[in-house]
Amino acid sequence: MSAPLLEQLIEALRVLPGVGQKTAQRMAYQLLERERQGGKHLAEVLAVALDSIGHCRHCRDFTETEVCAICASASRDQHLLCAVESPVDRLAIEQATGYRGLYFILQGRLSPLDGIGPRELGLDALSERLAQGEITELIIATNPTVEGEATAHYLAQLARQQSVHPSRLAHGVPLGGELEYVDRGTLSHAFGTRSEMPK
Amino acid sequence: MSAPLLEQLIEALRVLPGVGQKTAQRMAYQLLERERQGGKHLAEVLAVALDSIGHCRHCRDFTETEVCAICASASRDQHLLCAVESPVDRLAIEQATGYRGLYFILQGRLSPLDGIGPRELGLDALSERLAQGEITELIIATNPTVEGEATAHYLAQLARQQSVHPSRLAHGVPLGGELEYVDRGTLSHAFGTRSEMPK
Repeated sequence: MSAPLLEQLIEALRVLPGVGQKTAQRMAYQLLERERQGGKHLAEVLAVALDSIGHCRHCRDFTETEVCAICASASRDQHLLCAVESPVDRLAIEQATGYRGLYFILQGRLSPLDGIGPRELGLDALSERLAQGEITELIIATNPTVEGEATAHYLAQLARQQSVHPSRLAHGVPLGGELEYVDRGTLSHAFGTRSEMPK
Repeated sequence: MSAPLLEQLIEALRVLPGVGQKTAQRMAYQLLERERQGGKHLAEVLAVALDSIGHCRHCRDFTETEVCAICASASRDQHLLCAVESPVDRLAIEQATGYRGLYFILQGRLSPLDGIGPRELGLDALSERLAQGEITELIIATNPTVEGEATAHYLAQLARQQSVHPSRLAHGVPLGGELEYVDRGTLSHAFGTRSEMPK
Protein backbone atom coordinates (compact mmCIF):
# COMPACT_ATOMS: atom_id res chain seq x y z
CA MET A 1 0.00 0.00 0.00
CA SER A 2 3.08 2.28 -0.06
CA ALA A 3 3.61 4.75 -2.86
CA PRO A 4 4.80 2.79 -5.91
CA LEU A 5 7.88 5.02 -6.35
CA LEU A 6 8.86 4.31 -2.75
CA GLU A 7 8.53 0.59 -3.43
CA GLN A 8 10.69 0.94 -6.52
CA LEU A 9 13.34 2.70 -4.43
CA ILE A 10 13.26 -0.04 -1.78
CA GLU A 11 13.55 -2.70 -4.48
CA ALA A 12 16.41 -0.85 -6.20
CA LEU A 13 18.38 -0.53 -2.94
CA ARG A 14 18.42 -4.32 -2.62
CA VAL A 15 21.07 -4.45 -5.35
CA LEU A 16 23.57 -3.46 -2.62
CA PRO A 17 25.38 -6.41 -1.01
CA GLY A 18 23.96 -7.48 2.36
CA VAL A 19 20.83 -5.36 1.97
CA GLY A 20 17.53 -7.22 2.31
CA GLN A 21 13.93 -6.01 2.41
CA LYS A 22 14.03 -4.59 5.95
CA THR A 23 17.35 -2.80 5.57
CA ALA A 24 16.31 -1.38 2.19
CA GLN A 25 13.12 -0.04 3.80
CA ARG A 26 15.08 1.59 6.60
CA MET A 27 17.52 3.10 4.10
CA ALA A 28 14.74 4.50 1.90
CA TYR A 29 12.91 6.10 4.83
CA GLN A 30 16.14 7.49 6.27
CA LEU A 31 17.04 9.08 2.94
CA LEU A 32 13.55 10.59 2.55
CA GLU A 33 13.30 11.78 6.14
CA ARG A 34 16.73 13.10 6.86
CA GLU A 35 19.23 12.75 4.03
CA ARG A 36 17.67 14.14 0.85
CA GLN A 37 20.81 16.14 0.02
CA GLY A 38 23.16 13.23 0.67
CA GLY A 39 20.86 10.93 -1.27
CA LYS A 40 20.84 13.18 -4.30
CA HIS A 41 24.60 13.43 -4.14
CA LEU A 42 24.80 9.63 -3.99
CA ALA A 43 22.54 9.29 -7.04
CA GLU A 44 24.75 11.68 -9.02
CA VAL A 45 28.11 10.17 -8.01
CA LEU A 46 26.79 6.65 -8.56
CA ALA A 47 25.60 7.44 -12.09
CA VAL A 48 28.88 9.16 -13.02
CA ALA A 49 31.06 6.49 -11.38
CA LEU A 50 29.33 3.58 -13.10
CA ASP A 51 29.62 5.38 -16.43
CA SER A 52 33.21 6.51 -16.16
CA ILE A 53 35.08 3.97 -14.04
CA GLY A 54 36.77 1.33 -16.18
CA HIS A 55 39.90 -0.77 -15.82
CA CYS A 56 43.51 0.45 -15.79
CA ARG A 57 45.24 -0.59 -19.04
CA HIS A 58 48.23 -1.98 -17.12
CA CYS A 59 46.98 -3.47 -13.85
CA ARG A 60 43.23 -3.93 -14.47
CA ASP A 61 42.36 -2.01 -11.27
CA PHE A 62 39.29 0.25 -11.29
CA THR A 63 40.06 3.79 -12.45
CA GLU A 64 38.39 6.54 -14.45
CA THR A 65 41.66 7.33 -16.25
CA GLU A 66 43.37 5.09 -18.79
CA VAL A 67 46.24 4.28 -16.42
CA CYS A 68 45.70 4.24 -12.64
CA ALA A 69 47.63 6.42 -10.18
CA ILE A 70 49.89 3.59 -9.00
CA CYS A 71 50.84 2.39 -12.49
CA ALA A 72 51.46 6.00 -13.58
CA SER A 73 53.64 6.80 -10.57
CA ALA A 74 57.36 7.11 -11.34
CA SER A 75 58.27 6.52 -7.68
CA ARG A 76 57.09 2.88 -7.59
CA ASP A 77 59.59 0.05 -8.09
CA GLN A 78 59.09 -1.06 -11.72
CA HIS A 79 60.75 -4.45 -11.13
CA LEU A 80 58.25 -5.86 -8.61
CA LEU A 81 54.76 -6.99 -9.58
CA CYS A 82 52.21 -8.24 -7.04
CA ALA A 83 49.25 -10.27 -8.33
CA VAL A 84 46.05 -10.06 -6.25
CA GLU A 85 42.53 -11.35 -6.84
CA SER A 86 40.61 -8.12 -6.33
CA PRO A 87 40.98 -4.38 -5.73
CA VAL A 88 40.18 -4.78 -2.02
CA ASP A 89 43.18 -7.12 -1.68
CA ARG A 90 45.38 -4.49 -3.31
CA LEU A 91 44.00 -1.91 -0.89
CA ALA A 92 44.69 -4.18 2.10
CA ILE A 93 48.32 -4.73 1.03
CA GLU A 94 48.78 -1.05 0.27
CA GLN A 95 47.49 -0.08 3.72
CA ALA A 96 49.27 -2.79 5.75
CA THR A 97 52.67 -3.14 4.12
CA GLY A 98 55.42 -0.85 2.88
CA TYR A 99 55.30 -2.42 -0.59
CA ARG A 100 56.31 0.12 -3.24
CA GLY A 101 56.14 -2.02 -6.38
CA LEU A 102 53.34 -2.42 -8.93
CA TYR A 103 50.19 -4.55 -8.90
CA PHE A 104 48.27 -6.78 -11.24
CA ILE A 105 44.61 -7.28 -10.34
CA LEU A 106 43.20 -10.57 -11.66
CA GLN A 107 39.58 -9.53 -10.94
CA GLY A 108 38.81 -13.12 -9.97
CA ARG A 109 40.54 -16.50 -9.72
CA LEU A 110 40.77 -19.53 -11.97
CA SER A 111 37.49 -21.41 -11.72
CA PRO A 112 36.87 -23.60 -14.79
CA LEU A 113 33.39 -24.62 -13.58
CA ASP A 114 32.30 -20.96 -13.62
CA GLY A 115 33.92 -20.43 -17.01
CA ILE A 116 36.74 -18.33 -15.58
CA GLY A 117 39.98 -19.29 -17.30
CA PRO A 118 43.32 -17.57 -17.97
CA ARG A 119 41.77 -15.33 -20.63
CA GLU A 120 39.15 -13.93 -18.22
CA LEU A 121 41.88 -13.05 -15.70
CA GLY A 122 43.91 -11.23 -18.36
CA LEU A 123 46.80 -13.68 -18.03
CA ASP A 124 47.82 -13.29 -21.71
CA ALA A 125 48.46 -9.59 -21.02
CA LEU A 126 50.33 -10.53 -17.83
CA SER A 127 52.45 -13.04 -19.73
CA GLU A 128 53.37 -10.43 -22.35
CA ARG A 129 54.30 -7.99 -19.63
CA LEU A 130 56.55 -10.53 -17.88
CA ALA A 131 58.17 -11.28 -21.28
CA GLN A 132 59.25 -7.64 -21.62
CA GLY A 133 61.94 -8.35 -19.04
CA GLU A 134 61.50 -5.39 -16.72
CA ILE A 135 59.76 -7.39 -13.95
CA THR A 136 62.16 -9.55 -11.91
CA GLU A 137 59.82 -10.89 -9.22
CA LEU A 138 56.13 -11.81 -9.31
CA ILE A 139 54.68 -11.72 -5.79
CA ILE A 140 51.63 -13.99 -5.84
CA ALA A 141 49.10 -12.78 -3.24
CA THR A 142 45.97 -14.74 -4.22
CA ASN A 143 43.81 -15.93 -1.31
CA PRO A 144 44.83 -19.20 0.41
CA THR A 145 41.68 -20.98 -0.79
CA VAL A 146 41.56 -24.01 -3.10
CA GLU A 147 40.94 -21.84 -6.16
CA GLY A 148 43.39 -19.19 -4.99
CA GLU A 149 46.13 -21.83 -4.60
CA ALA A 150 45.39 -23.28 -8.04
CA THR A 151 45.63 -19.78 -9.50
CA ALA A 152 48.90 -19.25 -7.63
CA HIS A 153 50.41 -22.42 -9.14
CA TYR A 154 49.34 -21.36 -12.62
CA LEU A 155 50.86 -17.90 -12.12
CA ALA A 156 54.11 -19.39 -10.83
CA GLN A 157 54.42 -21.53 -13.98
CA LEU A 158 53.72 -18.50 -16.14
CA ALA A 159 56.44 -16.52 -14.34
CA ARG A 160 59.04 -19.30 -14.64
CA GLN A 161 58.37 -19.56 -18.41
CA GLN A 162 59.43 -15.91 -18.68
CA SER A 163 62.36 -16.35 -16.27
CA VAL A 164 60.66 -14.23 -13.61
CA HIS A 165 61.09 -15.29 -9.98
CA PRO A 166 57.67 -16.19 -8.45
CA SER A 167 57.12 -15.77 -4.70
CA ARG A 168 54.13 -16.43 -2.44
CA LEU A 169 52.99 -14.76 0.78
CA ALA A 170 54.02 -16.77 3.87
CA HIS A 171 51.39 -19.02 5.43
CA GLY A 172 51.33 -19.67 9.17
CA VAL A 173 49.92 -18.75 12.54
CA PRO A 174 48.51 -15.18 12.48
CA LEU A 175 50.20 -12.67 14.81
CA GLY A 176 48.22 -12.23 18.01
CA GLY A 177 46.37 -15.49 17.38
CA GLU A 178 46.21 -18.34 19.86
CA LEU A 179 47.35 -21.80 18.76
CA GLU A 180 44.22 -23.29 20.34
CA TYR A 181 42.02 -21.45 17.84
CA VAL A 182 44.15 -21.82 14.71
CA ASP A 183 42.70 -24.30 12.20
CA ARG A 184 44.48 -27.65 11.75
CA GLY A 185 45.65 -27.05 8.18
CA THR A 186 47.32 -23.77 9.08
CA LEU A 187 48.89 -25.20 12.24
CA SER A 188 50.22 -28.26 10.42
CA HIS A 189 51.67 -26.04 7.68
CA ALA A 190 53.22 -23.65 10.22
CA PHE A 191 54.74 -26.60 12.10
CA GLY A 192 56.20 -28.11 8.94
CA THR A 193 57.70 -24.84 7.69
CA ARG A 194 59.11 -23.69 11.05
CA SER A 195 62.27 -21.62 10.88
CA GLU A 196 65.21 -21.16 13.22
CA MET A 197 64.77 -18.49 15.89
CA PRO A 198 66.74 -15.37 15.02
CA LYS A 199 69.47 -14.68 17.61
CA MET B 1 45.68 5.73 -3.83
CA SER B 2 42.35 4.61 -5.36
CA ALA B 3 40.78 6.48 -8.23
CA PRO B 4 39.30 9.73 -6.86
CA LEU B 5 35.87 8.98 -8.36
CA LEU B 6 35.87 5.61 -6.61
CA GLU B 7 36.67 7.36 -3.33
CA GLN B 8 33.85 9.83 -3.93
CA LEU B 9 31.47 6.91 -4.49
CA ILE B 10 32.61 5.19 -1.28
CA GLU B 11 32.18 8.45 0.64
CA ALA B 12 28.73 9.06 -0.87
CA LEU B 13 27.51 5.55 0.05
CA ARG B 14 28.18 6.33 3.71
CA VAL B 15 25.07 8.47 3.76
CA LEU B 16 23.09 5.21 4.06
CA PRO B 17 22.24 4.20 7.64
CA GLY B 18 24.54 1.58 9.15
CA VAL B 19 27.08 1.87 6.35
CA GLY B 20 30.64 2.63 7.45
CA GLN B 21 33.90 2.81 5.52
CA LYS B 22 34.38 -0.96 5.07
CA THR B 23 30.79 -1.67 4.00
CA ALA B 24 30.79 1.30 1.62
CA GLN B 25 34.00 -0.05 0.05
CA ARG B 26 32.45 -3.48 -0.39
CA MET B 27 29.29 -1.97 -1.88
CA ALA B 28 31.23 0.18 -4.35
CA TYR B 29 33.37 -2.73 -5.57
CA GLN B 30 30.36 -5.03 -5.81
CA LEU B 31 28.48 -2.49 -7.93
CA LEU B 32 31.48 -1.95 -10.21
CA GLU B 33 32.33 -5.62 -10.52
CA ARG B 34 28.97 -7.27 -10.85
CA GLU B 35 26.01 -4.91 -10.64
CA ARG B 36 26.55 -2.04 -13.06
CA GLN B 37 23.02 -2.33 -14.45
CA GLY B 38 21.40 -2.53 -11.02
CA GLY B 39 23.57 0.34 -9.81
CA LYS B 40 22.54 2.57 -12.70
CA HIS B 41 18.91 1.72 -12.05
CA LEU B 42 19.39 2.60 -8.37
CA ALA B 43 20.94 5.96 -9.29
CA GLU B 44 17.98 6.80 -11.53
CA VAL B 45 15.24 5.68 -9.13
CA LEU B 46 16.96 7.42 -6.21
CA ALA B 47 17.18 10.73 -8.07
CA VAL B 48 13.55 10.57 -9.20
CA ALA B 49 12.26 9.40 -5.80
CA LEU B 50 14.04 12.14 -3.85
CA ASP B 51 12.72 14.73 -6.27
CA SER B 52 9.12 13.54 -6.48
CA ILE B 53 8.24 11.95 -3.16
CA GLY B 54 6.61 14.42 -0.81
CA HIS B 55 4.04 14.16 1.97
CA CYS B 56 0.38 13.18 1.63
CA ARG B 57 -1.86 16.24 2.22
CA HIS B 58 -4.03 14.30 4.64
CA CYS B 59 -1.86 11.86 6.57
CA ARG B 60 1.68 13.21 6.02
CA ASP B 61 2.90 9.80 4.79
CA PHE B 62 5.46 9.70 1.96
CA THR B 63 3.88 9.64 -1.49
CA GLU B 64 4.55 11.04 -4.94
CA THR B 65 0.89 11.97 -5.40
CA GLU B 66 -0.95 14.72 -3.51
CA VAL B 67 -3.02 12.23 -1.54
CA CYS B 68 -1.66 8.76 -0.70
CA ALA B 69 -3.33 5.50 -1.74
CA ILE B 70 -4.75 4.77 1.72
CA CYS B 71 -6.26 8.26 2.21
CA ALA B 72 -7.70 8.16 -1.33
CA SER B 73 -9.25 4.70 -0.86
CA ALA B 74 -13.03 4.67 -0.50
CA SER B 75 -12.96 1.23 1.13
CA ARG B 76 -11.21 2.39 4.32
CA ASP B 77 -13.22 3.22 7.42
CA GLN B 78 -13.39 7.03 7.50
CA HIS B 79 -14.26 7.14 11.22
CA LEU B 80 -11.08 5.60 12.59
CA LEU B 81 -7.76 7.44 12.65
CA CYS B 82 -4.52 5.83 13.87
CA ALA B 83 -1.65 8.15 14.83
CA VAL B 84 1.86 6.70 14.43
CA GLU B 85 5.30 8.22 14.72
CA SER B 86 6.73 7.17 11.36
CA PRO B 87 5.87 5.49 8.05
CA VAL B 88 7.56 2.24 9.15
CA ASP B 89 5.16 2.06 12.10
CA ARG B 90 2.22 2.46 9.71
CA LEU B 91 3.69 -0.30 7.55
CA ALA B 92 4.08 -2.60 10.57
CA ILE B 93 0.45 -2.07 11.64
CA GLU B 94 -0.79 -2.46 8.07
CA GLN B 95 1.08 -5.77 7.70
CA ALA B 96 0.28 -7.23 11.14
CA THR B 97 -3.30 -6.20 11.81
CA GLY B 98 -6.59 -6.16 9.96
CA TYR B 99 -7.00 -2.41 10.59
CA ARG B 100 -9.00 -0.80 7.78
CA GLY B 101 -9.18 2.80 9.02
CA LEU B 102 -7.01 5.81 8.17
CA TYR B 103 -3.64 6.92 9.50
CA PHE B 104 -1.94 10.09 10.62
CA ILE B 105 1.85 10.04 10.49
CA LEU B 106 3.44 12.43 12.97
CA GLN B 107 6.90 12.11 11.38
CA GLY B 108 8.45 12.32 14.83
CA ARG B 109 7.43 12.74 18.46
CA LEU B 110 7.19 15.68 20.84
CA SER B 111 10.72 16.53 21.95
CA PRO B 112 10.98 20.15 23.16
CA LEU B 113 14.75 19.90 23.66
CA ASP B 114 15.19 19.11 19.95
CA GLY B 115 12.78 21.90 19.01
CA ILE B 116 10.06 19.46 17.98
CA GLY B 117 6.71 20.80 19.18
CA PRO B 118 3.06 20.36 18.11
CA ARG B 119 3.57 22.50 15.01
CA GLU B 120 6.42 20.28 13.69
CA LEU B 121 4.21 17.20 14.07
CA GLY B 122 1.33 18.84 12.17
CA LEU B 123 -0.95 18.70 15.21
CA ASP B 124 -2.82 21.88 14.19
CA ALA B 125 -3.90 20.09 11.00
CA LEU B 126 -4.81 17.00 13.06
CA SER B 127 -6.88 19.14 15.45
CA GLU B 128 -8.77 20.70 12.55
CA ARG B 129 -9.44 17.28 11.11
CA LEU B 130 -10.78 15.96 14.41
CA ALA B 131 -12.99 19.07 14.67
CA GLN B 132 -14.70 18.19 11.39
CA GLY B 133 -16.55 15.49 13.29
CA GLU B 134 -16.11 12.54 10.95
CA ILE B 135 -13.49 10.80 13.11
CA THR B 136 -14.96 9.06 16.16
CA GLU B 137 -11.87 7.29 17.55
CA LEU B 138 -8.21 8.30 17.58
CA ILE B 139 -6.03 5.21 18.02
CA ILE B 140 -2.74 6.43 19.47
CA ALA B 141 0.07 4.09 18.40
CA THR B 142 3.18 6.10 19.31
CA ASN B 143 6.10 4.08 20.65
CA PRO B 144 6.06 3.21 24.38
CA THR B 145 9.12 5.39 25.09
CA VAL B 146 9.21 8.43 27.37
CA GLU B 147 8.75 10.82 24.45
CA GLY B 148 6.21 8.55 22.77
CA GLU B 149 4.12 8.43 25.98
CA ALA B 150 4.29 12.22 26.35
CA THR B 151 3.14 12.57 22.74
CA ALA B 152 0.33 10.08 23.41
CA HIS B 153 -0.92 12.12 26.39
CA TYR B 154 -0.87 15.30 24.32
CA LEU B 155 -2.79 13.59 21.49
CA ALA B 156 -5.37 12.21 23.94
CA GLN B 157 -6.03 15.73 25.29
CA LEU B 158 -6.36 17.04 21.74
CA ALA B 159 -8.90 14.31 20.92
CA ARG B 160 -10.98 14.93 24.04
CA GLN B 161 -11.15 18.66 23.24
CA GLN B 162 -12.84 17.70 19.96
CA SER B 163 -15.03 15.03 21.60
CA VAL B 164 -13.16 12.24 19.85
CA HIS B 165 -12.55 9.03 21.82
CA PRO B 166 -8.79 8.44 22.27
CA SER B 167 -7.46 4.88 22.65
CA ARG B 168 -3.96 3.48 23.15
CA LEU B 169 -2.40 0.16 22.07
CA ALA B 170 -2.35 -2.36 24.93
CA HIS B 171 0.90 -2.77 26.85
CA GLY B 172 1.93 -6.10 28.34
CA VAL B 173 3.89 -9.28 27.98
CA PRO B 174 4.66 -9.97 24.27
CA LEU B 175 3.15 -13.17 22.86
CA GLY B 176 5.74 -15.95 22.76
CA GLY B 177 7.92 -14.11 25.28
CA GLU B 178 9.09 -15.61 28.55
CA LEU B 179 8.31 -13.81 31.81
CA GLU B 180 11.90 -14.30 32.91
CA TYR B 181 13.15 -12.08 30.10
CA VAL B 182 10.44 -9.41 30.14
CA ASP B 183 11.64 -6.08 31.57
CA ARG B 184 10.38 -5.05 35.02
CA GLY B 185 8.35 -2.07 33.86
CA THR B 186 6.40 -4.13 31.35
CA LEU B 187 5.87 -7.01 33.79
CA SER B 188 4.69 -4.68 36.54
CA HIS B 189 2.29 -2.97 34.11
CA ALA B 190 0.99 -6.30 32.79
CA PHE B 191 0.44 -7.53 36.36
CA GLY B 192 -1.43 -4.38 37.36
CA THR B 193 -3.69 -4.41 34.29
CA ARG B 194 -4.46 -8.14 34.33
CA SER B 195 -7.88 -9.12 33.01
CA GLU B 196 -10.24 -11.99 33.78
CA MET B 197 -9.62 -15.18 31.82
CA PRO B 198 -12.24 -15.62 29.09
CA LYS B 199 -14.35 -18.76 29.66
